[in-house]
Amino acid sequence: MQHCDTLIAPRWCVPVEPLNAVLTDHAVIVNDGRITDLLPLKAALERYQPSVAIEKPDHMLVPGFVNAHTHAAMSLMRGLADDMPLERWLREGIWPAEERWVSAEMVRDGTELAIAEMIAGGTTCFSDQYYFPEVVAEVAVDLHMRAMIGTPIVEFPTAWAKNVAESLEKANDLVHDRYNDHPLISTCFAPHSTAALSDDSFLELRVLADQLDVRTQIHLHESAAELAAALEATGRRPFDRLLDLGLVNASLLAVHAVHLTRSEIDIFAESGVNIAHCPRSNLKLASGIAPIANYRNAGINVAIGTDGAASNNALDMLSDVRTAALLAKGVSHDAGAVSANEALKMATLDGATALGLAAEIGSIEVGKWADLACIDLNRLHSQPVYDPVSQLIYTARADQVTDVWIAGRHQLDNGKLTHIDTDNVLSRCHEWRDRFASSISRNSRI
Amino acid sequence: MQHCDTLIAPRWCVPVEPLNAVLTDHAVIVNDGRITDLLPLKAALERYQPSVAIEKPDHMLVPGFVNAHTHAAMSLMRGLADDMPLERWLREGIWPAEERWVSAEMVRDGTELAIAEMIAGGTTCFSDQYYFPEVVAEVAVDLHMRAMIGTPIVEFPTAWAKNVAESLEKANDLVHDRYNDHPLISTCFAPHSTAALSDDSFLELRVLADQLDVRTQIHLHESAAELAAALEATGRRPFDRLLDLGLVNASLLAVHAVHLTRSEIDIFAESGVNIAHCPRSNLKLASGIAPIANYRNAGINVAIGTDGAASNNALDMLSDVRTAALLAKGVSHDAGAVSANEALKMATLDGATALGLAAEIGSIEVGKWADLACIDLNRLHSQPVYDPVSQLIYTARADQVTDVWIAGRHQLDNGKLTHIDTDNVLSRCHEWRDRFASSISRNSRI
Repeated sequence: MQHCDTLIAPRWCVPVEPLNAVLTDHAVIVNDGRITDLLPLKAALERYQPSVAIEKPDHMLVPGFVNAHTHAAMSLMRGLADDMPLERWLREGIWPAEERWVSAEMVRDGTELAIAEMIAGGTTCFSDQYYFPEVVAEVAVDLHMRAMIGTPIVEFPTAWAKNVAESLEKANDLVHDRYNDHPLISTCFAPHSTAALSDDSFLELRVLADQLDVRTQIHLHESAAELAAALEATGRRPFDRLLDLGLVNASLLAVHAVHLTRSEIDIFAESGVNIAHCPRSNLKLASGIAPIANYRNAGINVAIGTDGAASNNALDMLSDVRTAALLAKGVSHDAGAVSANEALKMATLDGATALGLAAEIGSIEVGKWADLACIDLNRLHSQPVYDPVSQLIYTARADQVTDVWIAGRHQLDNGKLTHIDTDNVLSRCHEWRDRFASSISRNSRI
Repeated sequence: MQHCDTLIAPRWCVPVEPLNAVLTDHAVIVNDGRITDLLPLKAALERYQPSVAIEKPDHMLVPGFVNAHTHAAMSLMRGLADDMPLERWLREGIWPAEERWVSAEMVRDGTELAIAEMIAGGTTCFSDQYYFPEVVAEVAVDLHMRAMIGTPIVEFPTAWAKNVAESLEKANDLVHDRYNDHPLISTCFAPHSTAALSDDSFLELRVLADQLDVRTQIHLHESAAELAAALEATGRRPFDRLLDLGLVNASLLAVHAVHLTRSEIDIFAESGVNIAHCPRSNLKLASGIAPIANYRNAGINVAIGTDGAASNNALDMLSDVRTAALLAKGVSHDAGAVSANEALKMATLDGATALGLAAEIGSIEVGKWADLACIDLNRLHSQPVYDPVSQLIYTARADQVTDVWIAGRHQLDNGKLTHIDTDNVLSRCHEWRDRFASSISRNSRI
């Protein structure tokens, strides 16, 4: 008999790789944070002596969800400004609130709230883009959450940096250096949008990204208004500018990409640009509906992001991937577009690919980190089970996520967060609520 | 001091009528199943001596949701046939399974599962359309659920009736007679679609509907294929046929109505036809996206339905109304379309209107039945609360529904169904799963 740290025996194991596989009566073996075996339960019980054995007779085990785009700290602004289009939402709702309140402390408290919500909903990795990224990284490490920390780059002064030069310097010193080769934290550059940077700044960023070998993510072609403004200001579509600047390659994650021409789709596919599709945010801000069935058919890797809670309003990957699967069918007029199994892959392995982490996470395969989520299907609304993956994508809710492991650590145990003091998180959240509410003029019931 | 049956004191009370009202520190008083007072809590405590007093300090109280269209018993076919368009889904997935298995027993067990799921998710009234409607009505009465029982009318023989004449006779004898003026049950005619009935049958139905003074609901303009087939078979669009047959009036509930011309929209509005919008089902079957912002702007009453669980795949009104609110914004390019408050009204009072029940249910008003749902917002993903209605529509999940009353009876108490034996419901559900699975050829993991 061999020792192992953890043996997990769910009713169904869906490894995602290979696609469509559903393993029954199998066990996942975890050692030192990584998956070291995946085998029939009977054989596992004969071979391994686990420190911890966990049986989940009504549950399915899947790779933890990869949230390919969010602004975690904005959880404190959830519902602050609803029912407004992107540009008004930014100018009247979000930017004034941010100008008044964004600080390292706000980012710490908001990121903790967001990470707690994400882990409770089965997300084991998030790609972030917000001010004070060094704080986001610290919180992620403290709470043992996997994160891709996007260091924000904008031309205008913010609470975090006074210009692009300082953003790049801080990004380099504070973030990329510190987390080089960290087991949980990766970093990338996150220029906000093409409107937010000059050509010179983009070129500077490109040189540094090449030197440091880090990836880049950017909001791109999110709304018609963004395209119109870019055409007026520069005579070019934002993507054309990135092409001219030499930034279009497989290290690029284009966030949103709601509006692409046929030729842009072809260039995305040829150059390996990844897309973070944020369907609920795009609907809520009336930005449009990205035709992801077309994108996928063209060969583009499409991941799923929740976007920030101020525009979603939840960091709930199950809800966003369900919306993505349903929308893809409705918009493409093809009920076979984005099957349940394909949707699950988008929320896991395709997300890992989009972040450059596919060798490490995104599927239940030997050698990868044990980033896992366990979902209870024994609920009225998820029964009967003809196909567990169908129930996961089309019926399961975040509250059915009972157990989550991140790099092997049991972060959610029978529905309880093991390493996060949620009362404390909520009490700080309530303090921020009063601060934010005091600075906005809204109706009298607040 | 006056006696009262129940006093409910939530943190926020959202009566829906008037729109946008959010009452804090108020109490709802219930007597003999009806709302008899709604007043400030302080005054309520001075005036009333309740048999039961329920304080809900983190919760909002809203009218119970009205599910304007479903096929409850199809919950047993949840996930049986996914990722197929409407016509293939019916011909290859649903109809063969129904032909083999539909019976009074199946309808009883499936309807119980559906009602349990609906009550647990805050739904207090559903409009049903399925075979053995007398069984659906019996189950609803047994479980104390409010229902509009649509008696199915089709030309072809079914397990319930051999032709239209027998359908109408059974509908009249078994259903409408028995539940005339029942406190929980209303009835209506439910011809499946224009394709399913001859002109003569429609005329016979119209005469009987007028005699009995019952309403009519019908699947109408759900998919492009339905329109094309109707044009080929009759030379007319289905709605034009109903117009010619004299069936277009304020007693008509058009289910789906995904595809309407501008002039059809005008006629709907002028004649007071109601629409049951089933956004998730329409997306999942790739039927299209009903432009409900246009419909509402034209003055049409638009209610929300889940459709059956075989095409949704959940009977979760919170999920469908959220999808409706988000889709309306995305499709109309107007982030202000269907605000959170308007969405809540669609899921409650507009549903009641669509079923002809607006005088009895759909809002928290004195004199109406006490059909109420209480939702806990003290969850990570629903905090902070700037606006409880925003949190309800954009973040809340069915598991946050903690308490439900139907005609004053406390049907869900702190998250537990008080009058339904869910273990028993699930055990019969598992038996049906095995029967249905045995009759379909699917991959080997079932």
